Amino acid sequence: MMKGLWLENNQLQLRTDIATPEPPPGEALVRVLCAGVCNTDIELKRGYYPYTGIIGHEFVGVVEQGPEHLVNQRVVGEINAVCGKCRFCLSGQSTHCENRTVLGIVNRNGAFADYLCLPIENLHPVPENVPTEVATFTEPLAAALEIQQQVSLLPDHRVLVIGDGKLGQLVAQTLALTGCDLLVIGRHQDKLANLEALGIKTGLADAVVDRTFDISVECTGNADGFAIAHRALRPRGTLVLKSTYAGKLSLDASSLVVDEITLIGSRCGPFSAALDILSQESVDVKSLIQARYPLTEGLTAFEHAQTKGVLKVLLEVSS
Amino acid sequence: MMKGLWLENNQLQLRTDIATPEPPPGEALVRVLCAGVCNTDIELKRGYYPYTGIIGHEFVGVVEQGPEHLVNQRVVGEINAVCGKCRFCLSGQSTHCENRTVLGIVNRNGAFADYLCLPIENLHPVPENVPTEVATFTEPLAAALEIQQQVSLLPDHRVLVIGDGKLGQLVAQTLALTGCDLLVIGRHQDKLANLEALGIKTGLADAVVDRTFDISVECTGNADGFAIAHRALRPRGTLVLKSTYAGKLSLDASSLVVDEITLIGSRCGPFSAALDILSQESVDVKSLIQARYPLTEGLTAFEHAQTKGVLKVLLEVSS
Repeated sequence: MMKGLWLENNQLQLRTDIATPEPPPGEALVRVLCAGVCNTDIELKRGYYPYTGIIGHEFVGVVEQGPEHLVNQRVVGEINAVCGKCRFCLSGQSTHCENRTVLGIVNRNGAFADYLCLPIENLHPVPENVPTEVATFTEPLAAALEIQQQVSLLPDHRVLVIGDGKLGQLVAQTLALTGCDLLVIGRHQDKLANLEALGIKTGLADAVVDRTFDISVECTGNADGFAIAHRALRPRGTLVLKSTYAGKLSLDASSLVVDEITLIGSRCGPFSAALDILSQESVDVKSLIQARYPLTEGLTAFEHAQTKGVLKVLLEVSS
Repeated sequence: MMKGLWLENNQLQLRTDIATPEPPPGEALVRVLCAGVCNTDIELKRGYYPYTGIIGHEFVGVVEQGPEHLVNQRVVGEINAVCGKCRFCLSGQSTHCENRTVLGIVNRNGAFADYLCLPIENLHPVPENVPTEVATFTEPLAAALEIQQQVSLLPDHRVLVIGDGKLGQLVAQTLALTGCDLLVIGRHQDKLANLEALGIKTGLADAVVDRTFDISVECTGNADGFAIAHRALRPRGTLVLKSTYAGKLSLDASSLVVDEITLIGSRCGPFSAALDILSQESVDVKSLIQARYPLTEGLTAFEHAQTKGVLKVLLEVSS
């Protein structure tokens, strides 16, 4: 038996009676060391997508059962468990596998538990110089890096990030690495100060001059953020949607046509690039950690993570 | 004095008391031969965008005053009159000039009149072998070709066009030239038959298998069409918005993010490529002409063009 944070009918509970999983062929058993609460977890609890089971998908763990070269290694794991056979897998777009399960999101128990299973191919060893807490940011950092896989960023591009939360902070720091002309806007002076300390320009919404940015990245998940991302763009600009949205978004589609705007949805990204960046310490994730709780206080941790303005809440599961 | 179809407060009237324009420096005076009614004209009358003046932007005319090499020539004209000095003009994106006027759409009297003025640089001589009626399709055909300026189309791409109206017909025919794997869906058997006769696959909405198309092009301007364009796309597919929309569109933004969909607005395109295609007769536009009216029956023509299911209505202004 093991402990886990179980979601069912939009109710989260700490269960202690969950059967410890046995890894099926091709999968490894991972003992979770540390896990991070993401906005997607919060959206799942709000019912954005129906899911029953253990939630959580940002984690670092130790392999307890699996191939020899991984056993006792610290690992992070890509969250999409894929079939390897469908048209998307065969075309190299396996994060869109049509038969996929997704750790703590779609038909696969997640990381807010003592143990999880993932396909061996999903696991990446954590470089020795990267502390466990820091490596817990691999998944959201990879998601931030996906933007650069989708949109070419040139040094003279004017780029706007909307949102100073967990996602916005990582997106901003990774975009800053490209040398583009970057502005981050948010509502929280302390969080913006965090970015300013890293040399990133920040401001409030009124700092945005309409129709002047080449690229805007929406990291708030709300309609106000989207509206700013849209009005900030020059004609033929690109709006990157980085956040999931509860409910529908109302869109002035004609203005997209007249201004020939490109809108692009962006999700999971490259783990190895994220681990490289963490190993080189070229982004700062430690300052994003706002609280740490043991798994047994998972419900409190979740409440804390849901509080407006809170950055990353970690669950320290084992050591 | 001249005649013209004048829009004011969403009311269209045939006026006979409009001063014949005098071309300012750099512009030519064009006597209109033939003009086509576009959905944008209909949307303008419905109040999609506030405009007062002569409407109409698809035309063929004869230059009466202008540079020697153009006088007495048949011409078509690009609709954006630009400043040549703003950041968009200087970056080669003059269709997005921030100081532009637009023929019959923004602050510039249009083509449903005896005469119009346009900057000399906007005018393109019509090849001799292209009949005037056919050349009237240059502007919408150029707009259709804009898709290929924005999205690379490969022969193995599965492409869906939604809409069998004026725009859908031109978009379908130009996409067919690329050799892509094309399906056009619509609601009108006769219009679909028109495309079938050209060797283009067509069907009703139920012919669309969800999540199988690489690219979808929305040419209906309504929410139903958009919904089909969206559900037809595979993950990482591209949805081209080719039509303007009255009002707001309600969008499931999360599904754009999860499936990493690209949505791209598309407007004015290359006139010279359109004239080449008309000269080579590689598309058929004659079958799209549904009716012809003299300018004096312009209001009747407009009523006709607004009737559901009607293709192109032409105004024969002079000869």
